[in-house]
Amino acid sequence: MRFAKCVSAFRPSPIRGMMNAVINPNVISFAGGMPGNELFPVEDVREIIEKMPRKEMDTALQYGPTDGLPRLLKDMNEWMTKKGFDMSKNRIIITTGSTQAMSIVTKLFVDPHDVVLTEDPVFVGSAGAFCAYQADIIGVKMDREGIVIDDLEKKLARNPKFIYMTPTFHNPAGLTYSRERREQFLEIMAKHPDVIILEDDAYGELYYDEDVKSEIIPMKTYAKNENQIIYTSSFSKIFGPGLRIGWMIVPNEIYEAAEICKQSMDACTPQFSQMLAAEFIESGRMERYIEMLRKVYKERRDAMVNCLHKYCPEVEFVTPQGGFFLWAKMPEGVDEKELFTVCAEKGVVFVTGDAFNPEYKKNRYVRLSFSNTPPEVIERGVKILAEGIASLRK
Amino acid sequence: MRFAKCVSAFRPSPIRGMMNAVINPNVISFAGGMPGNELFPVEDVREIIEKMPRKEMDTALQYGPTDGLPRLLKDMNEWMTKKGFDMSKNRIIITTGSTQAMSIVTKLFVDPHDVVLTEDPVFVGSAGAFCAYQADIIGVKMDREGIVIDDLEKKLARNPKFIYMTPTFHNPAGLTYSRERREQFLEIMAKHPDVIILEDDAYGELYYDEDVKSEIIPMKTYAKNENQIIYTSSFSKIFGPGLRIGWMIVPNEIYEAAEICKQSMDACTPQFSQMLAAEFIESGRMERYIEMLRKVYKERRDAMVNCLHKYCPEVEFVTPQGGFFLWAKMPEGVDEKELFTVCAEKGVVFVTGDAFNPEYKKNRYVRLSFSNTPPEVIERGVKILAEGIASLRK
Repeated sequence: MRFAKCVSAFRPSPIRGMMNAVINPNVISFAGGMPGNELFPVEDVREIIEKMPRKEMDTALQYGPTDGLPRLLKDMNEWMTKKGFDMSKNRIIITTGSTQAMSIVTKLFVDPHDVVLTEDPVFVGSAGAFCAYQADIIGVKMDREGIVIDDLEKKLARNPKFIYMTPTFHNPAGLTYSRERREQFLEIMAKHPDVIILEDDAYGELYYDEDVKSEIIPMKTYAKNENQIIYTSSFSKIFGPGLRIGWMIVPNEIYEAAEICKQSMDACTPQFSQMLAAEFIESGRMERYIEMLRKVYKERRDAMVNCLHKYCPEVEFVTPQGGFFLWAKMPEGVDEKELFTVCAEKGVVFVTGDAFNPEYKKNRYVRLSFSNTPPEVIERGVKILAEGIASLRK
Repeated sequence: MRFAKCVSAFRPSPIRGMMNAVINPNVISFAGGMPGNELFPVEDVREIIEKMPRKEMDTALQYGPTDGLPRLLKDMNEWMTKKGFDMSKNRIIITTGSTQAMSIVTKLFVDPHDVVLTEDPVFVGSAGAFCAYQADIIGVKMDREGIVIDDLEKKLARNPKFIYMTPTFHNPAGLTYSRERREQFLEIMAKHPDVIILEDDAYGELYYDEDVKSEIIPMKTYAKNENQIIYTSSFSKIFGPGLRIGWMIVPNEIYEAAEICKQSMDACTPQFSQMLAAEFIESGRMERYIEMLRKVYKERRDAMVNCLHKYCPEVEFVTPQGGFFLWAKMPEGVDEKELFTVCAEKGVVFVTGDAFNPEYKKNRYVRLSFSNTPPEVIERGVKILAEGIASLRK
């Protein structure tokens, strides 16, 4: 096969090899970043479709504008304006999931072997999109408050095209940047106005502690250099990933190239999904649904945190204040890959930390997703994890 | 902006600039390759969703495997086996529309300035996908029976990575390759086993004359060198483009790279759309729906052909035996761009032939889509077209 050069740079998802385990009902999966199946607003969806006027149904089944269903774009403009974005300087594009937004940004800015900075650890789906365009990804260290500024300055010398970051409820690290660190970060970046900031906020609506609300305001809403930032988010965690809809807020100067880029990829985002989302928002269901999710996921987060304290006191972690993930450091001597093998045999799976390292380095971490598992099952799963850890420490 | 090099190669769709006209109900649009709104199986969709078991609804709203919803993959495997494909040597990937399949194939095989052969004229959506990866596209001449073999041999000397073709109900040319020409083509291509054949069959189910059925059998089902061929098709014309689902049949040797490639683009195809398609097929609705479409589109095709004979006898064309498009050659002295301006003022739009030429050369052709317009409106539109032609010939 005369494959193009990019094929040898592909970085497949670690979930790829364990899909059978993830969807096996007999397996306790802390692996995928998936919403709980039983939480989907199924009856709302049925009702929306039952009552949708014929004309709207026709529109939902037809081709539509590349940048999005006009009705949903209007809803999103209102919502994003309320959140504080300056929509006179930016435009929204509805994307086929936020993975597509990652793909668009990389295509727009990266020639082979251009540098992209990411946090270390980095979300594997985004890293996969960057590598598919032969970006050279370089990780920047993180501490409990976010990206480490010294390391950032060092890595900026590599002249990156953009820096990718998830400052709120980080995947996989479960961290949230402090407001102070965000401002330090923006100050440094203002000295590098050519470097795009790609702010991924897929989990921003899912906070479980009130005191975190002042920290998690998107940087693009208050940055002086806001036109340096492309912001992305997604309906996957607040409606349903099976609809494949996300959105990006791009500065006006980038909009046209981004729209034509998307057109070359899939012509337009599923109109049917977009129509459902528009009705879900306009009817007030979205707001109520997100409130319910916060309560349920908070219980699951608490269950995982409490069980880890109870059964695995030697495991280190920062309690996530939102999102889906807990990033757990195993005690010395416990190899995360061996732990995976031992636990998978007993019916518990998760993703090992090396998958999230830009260079696949082992790091003694595992990512535990609590979103898709009810509290009583989380307890069973953590017990098995604890047994696995104990067996490897012997 | 430090855009990547590919951005200057982007080739936006000609529809992009006329979207307002295309969706304006007061305009008669022969422009978009769109199904008729009033033909969508809206009540079937409502019924499917009303009756879908909760478990299937959950799956429809959740992430799924990158290559497709297992249930739909099974349906498609059965269907494609019946159509004659050797599914032991190939695998199906459900794509986010067939535009995504074009994007995947280009990404897999094209480095900047690699050559891609296309027919001349070529479907603009596909050309857009190829150019977005900086492919150098070179057109091969066509006559009434398909690609011109002499010209093909000459252009193959340019060492293309693949050749893109729509042998059945060509967009925009409305042509169908004869079986003889298909076999001549395959014989030549067998001498160039490194050159992938990308066989686009988006319109294959929509035939309006029984005698064309023996011609339109996909080449991949009978080619000796079938592993040289990637086949693509779509639900856009036989269910609804707003669902964004298409499929590709790829040789086993290409499957893994194609799947990882798609994963980097949008993780998976909308599960909700796929679930609807699976139920549409399994319940027998798809078969009945396609039969209905053939009848309705045949009436529209006939109306356009008869009106052109009646009102524009000086316009030359080959009667399309299926698909959505009639490729009409204007009489000498009539510039297609001026004709567009004149007709658009009177409320009729179409796409001018230069958009379909690999090098944007004017060619005195216009593409008239009859799929989205009932017969009586077609007559009004063709009358306005005739007046426009007459006014330019004065």
